[in-house]
This record gives sequence, C-alpha cells and structure tokens, in this order.
Amino acid sequence: MKKLEEKIRKEGRILPGEILKVDQFINHMIDTDLFVEMGQEYYEVFKDRGVTKILTLEVSGIALAFAAALQFHVPVLFAKKIQSLTLGNDVYKSQVYSYTKQKKNDIVADRNYLTKDDKVLIIDDFLAMGEALSGLIDLCNQAGAEVVGIGIGIEKAFQPGGETMRQKGYHVHSLARIERFAPEGVVFCEQPAAPQKHQRTAQ
Amino acid sequence: MKKLEEKIRKEGRILPGEILKVDQFINHMIDTDLFVEMGQEYYEVFKDRGVTKILTLEVSGIALAFAAALQFHVPVLFAKKIQSLTLGNDVYKSQVYSYTKQKKNDIVADRNYLTKDDKVLIIDDFLAMGEALSGLIDLCNQAGAEVVGIGIGIEKAFQPGGETMRQKGYHVHSLARIERFAPEGVVFCEQPAAPQKHQRTAQ
Repeated sequence: MKKLEEKIRKEGRILPGEILKVDQFINHMIDTDLFVEMGQEYYEVFKDRGVTKILTLEVSGIALAFAAALQFHVPVLFAKKIQSLTLGNDVYKSQVYSYTKQKKNDIVADRNYLTKDDKVLIIDDFLAMGEALSGLIDLCNQAGAEVVGIGIGIEKAFQPGGETMRQKGYHVHSLARIERFAPEGVVFCEQPAAPQKHQRTAQ
Repeated sequence: MKKLEEKIRKEGRILPGEILKVDQFINHMIDTDLFVEMGQEYYEVFKDRGVTKILTLEVSGIALAFAAALQFHVPVLFAKKIQSLTLGNDVYKSQVYSYTKQKKNDIVADRNYLTKDDKVLIIDDFLAMGEALSGLIDLCNQAGAEVVGIGIGIEKAFQPGGETMRQKGYHVHSLARIERFAPEGVVFCEQPAAPQKHQRTAQ
C-alpha cells in the first residue's frame, strides 16, 4: 500500500535493534484517515471469505481491527493479555512470547465470543516473529473457528513470522513489507502470491 | 442514547461490587456499528469546538476514540500505561489510581503529540470515580492543550467522577448514565445540562 510505505519512509524512525518507531501514526497516535484506507484494503482482499469476526490482540491492534470491521460490519474481538475482573474463567487461553520483554504472556478470549461457526479475519499492526499471530490462531483452533485470512499493517519480511504462516497455508496480506533497513532508509518488498485456493479472490 | 441503554439493559450483566459487565459489546468484543453511532453522537455534540485531537487511555477507550475520530477526521492519541521501547523519555506523565487493582499507575503521552495548539476531545468508555479522566486532563494541562469536551460511553452517575468534572466546568457528555442498579435491572438518568458557555452548541 503505497500511502503506508510513504508514511513509513517519511515519518518512521529506525531505532537500535531494528525497531521501527511508527508511534506517530500507528501505535501511540493514530492517523485516522490512513487507518480507514487500510481497513478498505483488507476488505478488498478478504471480502469474499464470509468473515464473521475480526480478531486482534490488545493494545495496538485494536484501532486497525476496528477500521477493518467498519468495512465488514462484523464485531471485533480483542484478546486480552491480562485477565480482567469482568472476564470469568470460561476462556480460551494461549501463550505469546514477547521478544522485547523476553517473557511469556498469557492471552485470553471469552469462550462465548469465539465459536466454531466463526470465520475469523485476524488483524494486527505488526508481524515479525509471528508470536502474537500464533497465539491468536491457537485461540481460534481451540474454539474450532476457521481463520480465513490474516491482515497485517507492517511486516518485517526479514524475520520469519510471515513466511512461516504462509507455508502453513494462511493467506497473510501485509500492507507494507519491509525487506531491510538500509542506510538510505527503509526498503520495501512485494507481497507474495496468495495461497492457490485464494488466488482468484486475492487478485 | 437509547440504543446503548437498550443494549446495556439487554446484554449487560451486573456483577458483585456494582461492576457492570458489558464485554460482549464494549470492552472485549466490540459492536462495530453501535460504536460508529456513538462516534456520530459525540460529533453532533462537540462538532463546533474546533477539535484537533482525540485523547484516550489504553486499552478499552481506543476503539471508541477511533469511532469518534472517524467523524472529526483528526488523529487519536492514546495515553499508555506502560512506557514502551519506542517511547523515549520525552513524555508527559501522570498517575491514575485504579480502584479495581488498588494501585497507582503511571500514564504517559509523548510530548511531541500533545501541544499547546491542541483542542482536545477526551473519550473514554467508562466514567465512575473519574481517576482516568483526571490523569488525561493532567496530561493536557502539562502540554498547555485545551480540553474542549469529554465524551463518555457509560457513566456510573451514582459515583462522583462526572459530577466533579462538571463542577469544574468541563462539558461531559455520557451516552448512557446509570442512576442505580435496581433488582429489576439498570435504571438510567438524564444528561445534565451542558455548562452555560456551551449550551447553544450542546442542544
């Protein structure tokens, strides 16, 4: 998505450890109109999949998931990292390893809100090692829900998460794919083809 | 807002400690189309205030803030409870006491994203004691930004937060105001009048 790539080139900052700082428009302050367009692109790609629910992980996936849900007119479910007072014990639970915090976190979703009848579009702002995605897919598997697509904001294509998910047959669509951080700036790469079964709808 | 009140009556559950469980449509799963309408109502009330930014607090304020921002076409800034890797030290910081967790939490916002030129609409899903609001207002005060309105999803009117804010002159607009939890269900009450200086625009 050209507009997102341009925004990353112009406003993103590369911090030590190959961390891309985009909190000016993605994960602290949100560029509302850009997010709406990102949601529209997810809709173009996944509109024929019968999506019944958008699943994401708190915190920074929520606004992007909501922007997608605007197009699909389905509910957003955000998995929680901490079990809250109002969330009972009747939850699906998985674990997500955080490389930045170097520890495992539980993530949970209420069993009543994710069911075997759901066709789930997973949305997240970042994809690197794929840990959060694996946790979200695990929650869907526990519920017997079908993952019909994965929409990512920014994929670090030089890390293995996206490749691993695509090899497993998931249709991962990232709006910006970073090949590498070069001295002259961020270098982007193309989207891989959709899995064969989805190629007609994903063109 | 009748639709929200009906939804609370129908799907909300009252837990011990006067906790209202609405995670079926507000703070775990999100009713996307309802949120869009909630955002539209904030726009009707606050559209003449020259809003330049919507401010909220992670986690559960984000989607509602984004729904409001859709109407105003301004960025959302969500204050963070934990200082992340990409957030430097150049932040405004306040403290919010959590009654449910019985401890104080720091909340932070990057100084670059909240400035003296901002006219801020604060959005949050719940208002009870007003702790989160006070912290968000404190961040605005530190930045020299003007708080031009406060939009709340559900206000527990039997707790002092809303009254305190209104006495300070803030225009607090809550989409559902709960007077009490009665044995037969939730009892709602009317919205207080807007502060005098805003009465014309708030009708």
